[in-house]
Amino acid sequence: MDLERLFKPKSMAVVGISKKNPLSPGRIVLLKNEFEMNVKVYGIYPNGGNIEGIKLYERLDKLPEIPDLLVIAVGPDDTLNYIKDCANLNIPAAVIIGGGFAEIGGKGKKRQEELEKIAFENDIAVLGPNCLGVYAPPIVDTIFLPTERITRPPKGSVALISQSGGVLVDQFFVKFNERHIGVSTAVSIGNRAVVDEEMLLEYFSQVDPETTNIAFYLEGFKEGKARKFLQLAKKSEDTVIVFFGGKTREGKVATQSHTASLAGDFKIIYNALRQHYIIQPHSERELLTCLKVYDLLSHKRNPFGKNVITYGNVAIVSVSGGHAVLASDMLKKYGLNAIRFSQQEKRKLKSLVNSTIQDIASFNNPIDLTGSVLDRDIENIIRYLSDLDKIECIILLLLPYPPNISFQIGSRIANIITSKKKPIVCFVPYVSKYSLIIESLELAYIPVFHSIKEAVQAVSALKERTRVDNLKIKNLFWERST
Amino acid sequence: MDLERLFKPKSMAVVGISKKNPLSPGRIVLLKNEFEMNVKVYGIYPNGGNIEGIKLYERLDKLPEIPDLLVIAVGPDDTLNYIKDCANLNIPAAVIIGGGFAEIGGKGKKRQEELEKIAFENDIAVLGPNCLGVYAPPIVDTIFLPTERITRPPKGSVALISQSGGVLVDQFFVKFNERHIGVSTAVSIGNRAVVDEEMLLEYFSQVDPETTNIAFYLEGFKEGKARKFLQLAKKSEDTVIVFFGGKTREGKVATQSHTASLAGDFKIIYNALRQHYIIQPHSERELLTCLKVYDLLSHKRNPFGKNVITYGNVAIVSVSGGHAVLASDMLKKYGLNAIRFSQQEKRKLKSLVNSTIQDIASFNNPIDLTGSVLDRDIENIIRYLSDLDKIECIILLLLPYPPNISFQIGSRIANIITSKKKPIVCFVPYVSKYSLIIESLELAYIPVFHSIKEAVQAVSALKERTRVDNLKIKNLFWERST
Repeated sequence: MDLERLFKPKSMAVVGISKKNPLSPGRIVLLKNEFEMNVKVYGIYPNGGNIEGIKLYERLDKLPEIPDLLVIAVGPDDTLNYIKDCANLNIPAAVIIGGGFAEIGGKGKKRQEELEKIAFENDIAVLGPNCLGVYAPPIVDTIFLPTERITRPPKGSVALISQSGGVLVDQFFVKFNERHIGVSTAVSIGNRAVVDEEMLLEYFSQVDPETTNIAFYLEGFKEGKARKFLQLAKKSEDTVIVFFGGKTREGKVATQSHTASLAGDFKIIYNALRQHYIIQPHSERELLTCLKVYDLLSHKRNPFGKNVITYGNVAIVSVSGGHAVLASDMLKKYGLNAIRFSQQEKRKLKSLVNSTIQDIASFNNPIDLTGSVLDRDIENIIRYLSDLDKIECIILLLLPYPPNISFQIGSRIANIITSKKKPIVCFVPYVSKYSLIIESLELAYIPVFHSIKEAVQAVSALKERTRVDNLKIKNLFWERST
Repeated sequence: MDLERLFKPKSMAVVGISKKNPLSPGRIVLLKNEFEMNVKVYGIYPNGGNIEGIKLYERLDKLPEIPDLLVIAVGPDDTLNYIKDCANLNIPAAVIIGGGFAEIGGKGKKRQEELEKIAFENDIAVLGPNCLGVYAPPIVDTIFLPTERITRPPKGSVALISQSGGVLVDQFFVKFNERHIGVSTAVSIGNRAVVDEEMLLEYFSQVDPETTNIAFYLEGFKEGKARKFLQLAKKSEDTVIVFFGGKTREGKVATQSHTASLAGDFKIIYNALRQHYIIQPHSERELLTCLKVYDLLSHKRNPFGKNVITYGNVAIVSVSGGHAVLASDMLKKYGLNAIRFSQQEKRKLKSLVNSTIQDIASFNNPIDLTGSVLDRDIENIIRYLSDLDKIECIILLLLPYPPNISFQIGSRIANIITSKKKPIVCFVPYVSKYSLIIESLELAYIPVFHSIKEAVQAVSALKERTRVDNLKIKNLFWERST
């Protein structure tokens, strides 16, 4: 199936437009794509006419061209008729917004079977039913909620696939925006009658050049699809992340493991995924942290190169003792290690800071430079730590409250990091007045988080990706040598 | 000791002012209180003179009055001399900002012993050393960080006592502001040489009329103080909340339990606190949730009266199926229960919504009104649920994405709740464009949270307070009858 026509259509048609109700889903999708997106969009309406200057066509076969994609926003029985039209007219892709299929059981289930039959026989890439569809900036957006009401994430490297449309638009879009995580394509798969997680993994991994991180928010694998999914993940050059949301993870995974013919216990599934080089965050927040750090470091111009390699050996730099302790205490839980400084290194560190703080600062790991810190103390320490090979990553807890920290501190750190190329993750409080500092760091591709926990999680995410990448490389050598 | 002079001084003096360095702690405290706070403030400087129009006095004994409070921002040895001055001049309270005491061991420990001796012999309420001191709006603020750099929480009912100054100013002030949690007084206790958690609990519980919620962020109890603290908590009419932060809770509590003469295992401490009617959140986020809901419902005009009583029987109302499931799945973990509707009640609920959604909405608990919901559907459902006695609290997951939800929805719900007085907790996404909805709800004292988890935690916090209040009442009867 040609998923490219689904996600990068040159033209699309919309059915289910209301002339009376300006908020009908079909009409919102029509106007949104006409006025906000790049795709050429046609509206279908039985009597023709026009809406806000857009000419409407009476039937699909009256369109001046065969569209790549049909967005269907009508009741379930009419939907099936439109899918038949796709078959007859060779329309290669469709998004079905409405419900009334397998999710209601009974006759809905039969409808879905018929839908699947037509789609597979005619090779139509059908997304849904019962879904929000696709948001693939700047090309297409089939989300029927008014743009001004939702929050759109920026463009980036993450293909985001969600079984729940509500969670996609609310939890993910809002938090992606807050954290500046960019999507290549966001997909709401709904009932996943035809296009499912396996096809999507294949497409984003092997076809789509914009995607380097593929994230799934699933309640469970589709029946019979787990094995193929794992094989695809194992071969993928992209980073594959799976998070089981919805019901308690244990319960959900146990349920689906049965249908997916894997042993029915969470630990086993977890290990199976782990062995197939899939990254599994432990919470939604950790999922967001992973995606932020992977997305930011996917930029070609990031100073650390394609893959940041870390086995978890960190140095923590703070200007507040309390924050240093909190971060330090979290390291173990996340499999990280604060490397020890030798006496000589401690003396050197001490010599690098202003005389006021030499006796009150702490030069163990964590390093606490105290509230009397100056910009150049932070610079000197970061520069020195960057040259220590045993430190793989720096965690900088940058509270801008001490009176002598200037608002140039972000770009001053960015300058050092850009030349030294030592991976660094920062914590800066999420307060709008500090956006100058935050932006100067992130412009240099230095990830900034707004809680200590997320900063620690971010390094753990890099460590986990290092593990996965190493396994993939080993696997590649092994395959070549056999 | 007279803590009122510490937290509500009519006059204060500051020592440790630099004429050269505009960012010296003493100078920041002087200017901050002169220009931003209500207290009468005097500066002490050996040669007199003035700073920004504020006359400086050469010595404490040259001041036109004996100040209520002395803020000391000098080195540790000079600090001791100033404490002696307090004794000689009968200054009843002091804040010691600087360190160099017990926290550095050795001679620092001796200094602290001397400090304690003078303070206790002369009845001086000394806060610190090694602390940020007091923020008691609108009277006094001894936090030596520039006001424009930090975030100040609004005025409210919470006395917030923190062992870590950094955590107080960063974690708490920032998040209190974000969540609109108000403080009566915020206290950084530092080394708590003299004024400690027990004295503070006594003061806020028995003296301060503005405080109705007393929250402690401790690493552990001060040696020998746990038992008295527990007795005070048991008798307190205020809600007492304790959270052990810093190192892993288990480890910390185990350590301090020894010194506090309680058995050295977390479970035992936890139960001891629970038996003494202290609320113990499980995470910092849950702590914030508790404080937000307790603070908002401490307002005299809140429609639910002084104490919201709930044993955890809730109804969930959502406009997104995914969100409904997420909330529903969390109930059990937080000890809550989604009450079951009878067939008759379900029929009634169905009859209350517009015909478009009658067949697609779900009228189990959670109720899912779908994206085709209208304002008046939500109103009708809330009104009906308010009249059902078996529902103690409503959890409303209010995503404003569906196109027909208006921006009046907040005040429309507030109107119903104000007349029906049924406790309700809302989730609304944390996106600035929805502030109109959020503000209309919170103006009516309806707590709004920005994650589903926090909305569920909030009801759990009310249930826990109900348990504690019931125990306190029982205890009172028991004491009276014996």
